[in-house]
Amino acid sequence: MDAATRIESTLADAVLLAEASGAPPRLAAAMRHAVFPKGARIRPRLSIAVAMACGDDRPRLSSAAAASIELLHCASLVHDDMPCFDDADTRRGRASVHRAFGEPLAVLAGDALIVLAFQTVARAAPCAPERLGPVIGAIGDGVGVPFGIVAGQAWECEPEVNLSDYQRQKTGALFAAATVAGAAAAGAPDPEAWRMLGDRLGEAYQVADDLRDAVEDEATIGKPVGRDKALGRPSAVAEFGLDGAVRRLATLAEAAVAAIPACPGQGRLRALILEETRRLLPAKLATA
Amino acid sequence: MDAATRIESTLADAVLLAEASGAPPRLAAAMRHAVFPKGARIRPRLSIAVAMACGDDRPRLSSAAAASIELLHCASLVHDDMPCFDDADTRRGRASVHRAFGEPLAVLAGDALIVLAFQTVARAAPCAPERLGPVIGAIGDGVGVPFGIVAGQAWECEPEVNLSDYQRQKTGALFAAATVAGAAAAGAPDPEAWRMLGDRLGEAYQVADDLRDAVEDEATIGKPVGRDKALGRPSAVAEFGLDGAVRRLATLAEAAVAAIPACPGQGRLRALILEETRRLLPAKLATA
Repeated sequence: MDAATRIESTLADAVLLAEASGAPPRLAAAMRHAVFPKGARIRPRLSIAVAMACGDDRPRLSSAAAASIELLHCASLVHDDMPCFDDADTRRGRASVHRAFGEPLAVLAGDALIVLAFQTVARAAPCAPERLGPVIGAIGDGVGVPFGIVAGQAWECEPEVNLSDYQRQKTGALFAAATVAGAAAAGAPDPEAWRMLGDRLGEAYQVADDLRDAVEDEATIGKPVGRDKALGRPSAVAEFGLDGAVRRLATLAEAAVAAIPACPGQGRLRALILEETRRLLPAKLATA
Repeated sequence: MDAATRIESTLADAVLLAEASGAPPRLAAAMRHAVFPKGARIRPRLSIAVAMACGDDRPRLSSAAAASIELLHCASLVHDDMPCFDDADTRRGRASVHRAFGEPLAVLAGDALIVLAFQTVARAAPCAPERLGPVIGAIGDGVGVPFGIVAGQAWECEPEVNLSDYQRQKTGALFAAATVAGAAAAGAPDPEAWRMLGDRLGEAYQVADDLRDAVEDEATIGKPVGRDKALGRPSAVAEFGLDGAVRRLATLAEAAVAAIPACPGQGRLRALILEETRRLLPAKLATA
């Protein structure tokens, strides 16, 4: 089974849990709306790529870890789109969850997706119980306090913000969780050695996201654009200018490839990362 | 160390994680506000009481499981108090989190507390790695989909509600998680056998909460009262009347005691449960 099929199939099984008879059907519908149809699935694909580079001897657990990362990403999108944050009406080209289901169900669908992430990993753990702690540790670090994506988002509520801390936590942390959890799920001897790869890729992805917000239109990326400038938010484009941000993206992509630890599938993973990071640059800027 | 000290000390260590240098300080403050000063801690005390009745040979893990249950309870209070649900200005006798820190940090503090619950259990797991899956499974069932407290809260967004499903999920589920996770943390042979005790206690607690909402004043219980009636919410008082609800509470307390499985500390646990359930009846009704 290829990585994309593993991810979609594990996510489908996870979301199915919400649709049991006797459970509130609108909550399940809101969760499904948040997870399907799919986005780029860039984080879970990264997680599975790392697991495969490390031998991937427990594919059920690595698929669950990857799905868990994506569920947490979807949860963060649901909450970040709410009126008290980005107030975004659209996401992935259609109504955001609070626009489609109301604010109460947006809060609860996000909460339930966070819990579902941990349920999903725990349910896959009987194949390798001793790896569950490290996998959950990696995922928890990427999402929670002190330096996960929730902490990153919370910097928007602070009077003073360091751009690098903000972006590393808001985006990089979940990429690092994807690489570390992928390695831990595959039983790699030192999962923490994979953190640097995730950090660099996360930073690259954040710069690319800032570039998209600055140069793309809503129809192309399926969500409102120009939000960073409109809301006065910190962004790489605001800090380095458009050209500076493009150069920073290239530097970070090289640093990511250089950060891949020695492992059985190192060559193949390098090629994959190079290909993925090339795709991050908005088409308008690549052809300019 | 007594149960109360174990709970407070484990919660204090957990919340300290949010206060690391380089993390957003207002998020940490909002989380601390949600967890301290303490409420009744009825769920974590139940969890530890069950662990002790089962031998409690890994107290670090059972303390973490108990703290995790309380963190999830606090998270649910933070989100349920928000304007899109109960719109409660006070909680535990002072400002609710969104009143003290704003809506964005209320959303994020709740999210971070959910994640912290799982981080806390995972960090305690090295002493008994094979128990982590069952403990997280029990906790996830109590909070998430299909039948946990988030699902319970989501019934408030459905056009038709069954009172028994609603209350079992909204309140009973976390009590059941407290008993099952306590048993699993202590290595009990069949943790699921402890679910019935939690279910019954949760239902008793929900009936007691409905009674308090109907007969107490805000100064006594530290949060707004009369909300069920004002918001037209399902409640045991609305369904059975005041006397009927009092009788139902007594029946449920007896059923809880009868549901305690055979275990080394059965006698002591029975006495404790009897004492706790007696305290649930609002003083006004007990003296009437």
